[in-house]
Amino acid sequence: MVHSYLDHLECGRCHATYDADRVMHLCPACGGPLLARYDLEQARREMPAPSRDGTPGGGRADLWRYAPVLPIRDPAHRVTLGEGWTPVLPLGRIGDRLGLPHLYLKDEGQNPTGTFKARGAAVGVSRARELGVTDLALPTAGNAGGAWATYGARGGLRSHVVMPQDAPVIAQREVVAAGGELQLVPGLISDAGKVVAEKAEKEGWFDASTLKEPYRIEGEKTMGYELVEQLGRMPDVIIFPVGGGVGVIGIYKAWQEMQVLGWVDGERPPRLVAVQAEGCSPIVRAYERQAAESEFFTGAETLAAGIRVPKALGDFLVLAAIYDTGGTAVAVTDAEIVEAMRSLGREEGVMACPEGAAALAGAMKLARQGWLDRGQTIVLFNTGSGFKYPELLGS
Amino acid sequence: MVHSYLDHLECGRCHATYDADRVMHLCPACGGPLLARYDLEQARREMPAPSRDGTPGGGRADLWRYAPVLPIRDPAHRVTLGEGWTPVLPLGRIGDRLGLPHLYLKDEGQNPTGTFKARGAAVGVSRARELGVTDLALPTAGNAGGAWATYGARGGLRSHVVMPQDAPVIAQREVVAAGGELQLVPGLISDAGKVVAEKAEKEGWFDASTLKEPYRIEGEKTMGYELVEQLGRMPDVIIFPVGGGVGVIGIYKAWQEMQVLGWVDGERPPRLVAVQAEGCSPIVRAYERQAAESEFFTGAETLAAGIRVPKALGDFLVLAAIYDTGGTAVAVTDAEIVEAMRSLGREEGVMACPEGAAALAGAMKLARQGWLDRGQTIVLFNTGSGFKYPELLGS
Repeated sequence: MVHSYLDHLECGRCHATYDADRVMHLCPACGGPLLARYDLEQARREMPAPSRDGTPGGGRADLWRYAPVLPIRDPAHRVTLGEGWTPVLPLGRIGDRLGLPHLYLKDEGQNPTGTFKARGAAVGVSRARELGVTDLALPTAGNAGGAWATYGARGGLRSHVVMPQDAPVIAQREVVAAGGELQLVPGLISDAGKVVAEKAEKEGWFDASTLKEPYRIEGEKTMGYELVEQLGRMPDVIIFPVGGGVGVIGIYKAWQEMQVLGWVDGERPPRLVAVQAEGCSPIVRAYERQAAESEFFTGAETLAAGIRVPKALGDFLVLAAIYDTGGTAVAVTDAEIVEAMRSLGREEGVMACPEGAAALAGAMKLARQGWLDRGQTIVLFNTGSGFKYPELLGS
Repeated sequence: MVHSYLDHLECGRCHATYDADRVMHLCPACGGPLLARYDLEQARREMPAPSRDGTPGGGRADLWRYAPVLPIRDPAHRVTLGEGWTPVLPLGRIGDRLGLPHLYLKDEGQNPTGTFKARGAAVGVSRARELGVTDLALPTAGNAGGAWATYGARGGLRSHVVMPQDAPVIAQREVVAAGGELQLVPGLISDAGKVVAEKAEKEGWFDASTLKEPYRIEGEKTMGYELVEQLGRMPDVIIFPVGGGVGVIGIYKAWQEMQVLGWVDGERPPRLVAVQAEGCSPIVRAYERQAAESEFFTGAETLAAGIRVPKALGDFLVLAAIYDTGGTAVAVTDAEIVEAMRSLGREEGVMACPEGAAALAGAMKLARQGWLDRGQTIVLFNTGSGFKYPELLGS
């Protein structure tokens, strides 16, 4: 069996195709993000069937069990800390209270680096190393920077991380602890992005900004593959906090791939729900207008730093995933986020990050509105560990 | 198949036996800690063979795959957040530097609650719930309190946690976030223990102090079972930071059980190495005198709060495990601990807690002394996530 069925890159916007085996960033034709495409027909014949019983039958309990649909050609280039195969936990007490008996939380906080960003960094750094990259650069709201610096350290790559000066302190320290170069700038992740673009160009660094390279999303998509194996099928609804949007885009990509692989025959797509903070909700505003793209959100402000992204490069892909699956987008207040953190800790024993708590707050809102119902299987994503937010823990 | 082969309790000191199906604390005859004993001959016939290829073949990727040798009789009482089956990571760069090509780290920081204490709390709380307990009380250096409060919340039990007032802030907040009652006291865990003993007696709470109930160790022992499945056999050397000692006692108990189960036929026992801080090293002092028990360590002081335990109730069991396996005990300085944290982050991408870093510092010392050699397979335990120590991360 070949190790990876990676075939080519395709622009998510104009659908131009490119060779997958050289370093690529945005589409040279239109500036859209590039997506990895595989020979899925071949993979279908050779990949093991999903286990569907909650256990990682016949393989590793990490995301490398999906190696045939990941972009690393030679396993020697894998940079791993044991990421993926995170638990799916029933939220019994909260579900009862909301009238949602099949409510679950997938706890991404149990990943290395304490967030789902570990998945994207593991695959992104591995592929960058395979393609000969030595220096990574990226702007980040915090956790992606920590993850890429950490996997960079593990893989022997240097990393250059630019963060807003008010990014969570733990993520700042994480970059330093991994030996990465940290630069703090005034403003938001969008401002950090400008600094990275300039410096990466000048220094010859690999710009690993969200969706400016094709492989971070390949790591994130494994969350979708795991759900089918852990729950036996795709859930009816998936609720995800959205900043850059790679989580939602990745899960939707997994859904599309699994259709070709025969993993989800006869199933309806999971309704994908994007949750944002009221203080930074460009995707929600676009959804309300049924627009194909979002507009830059001025004055972005929320305590959930990871979803403080005023304009995402992949906004049109997030919105397409919502529209295509019959999902929705919902905004919640910082007060609702803090209250959801409290509930998760006290009622369910889950120390969630504010972004994960936002997903619960969104579910609560949709339950009140009758958009969710008791017959549905619903999975919230807690995207990170509450331990990375000591200032909010136990507040 | 019966769910658990739990048969009786046996005193670790005087070997008196007791009924396992009622609430028990220390041995009524001699005051020694009670250990759970199973019908291992029966279990041997009915338990699945270990997978030995690094994957959790034929079962769950958490510690409940060992349910037949865990004490919970009815799976309905399981309180779980997905604990166990943590990754074993090669430490390639550090190993090369030390001349130890087969050096590994088992990363317990990827557990729920961010430490190996999740294992003991999951099993301890589950069994307490099964036996009808409603209120848990325990003294803690920090992380055990956070874990028991969190699993208590998940299981619907109230928790009462007493900590030294200078215990790590994150662990304090974790108890509060889980809705537990937190009391801070001057002094050390031994002082907290006195408060708990008094209050538990008065209020009718279940005293869940280290080894004062028989089941925490049952959760911790699963670290030993996992190693056999993940590495294919027991390693030659296991290096563990020792405070209360339950990790070492648990792994040695797993070794003894696996001999009866036929999982380690023909293997030599792993040499068990206890690492302590120079500022609190009662076990190391006892080992140096080849004593059977330790003496109370006055003036205990180290930044590694989890191993600041001046006298462990199970010290004689830790020492017996070291002597029986040809292990050793070694003390390291706080400066060596901080330096080991740096190395793990920068060279290997592992954000270790200070206790886990102490294990590496111990390995470095033993490598310099020639006690370790390049032919050995050596596993260090990183007992918790560096994110729980923001004041040390990146320092």
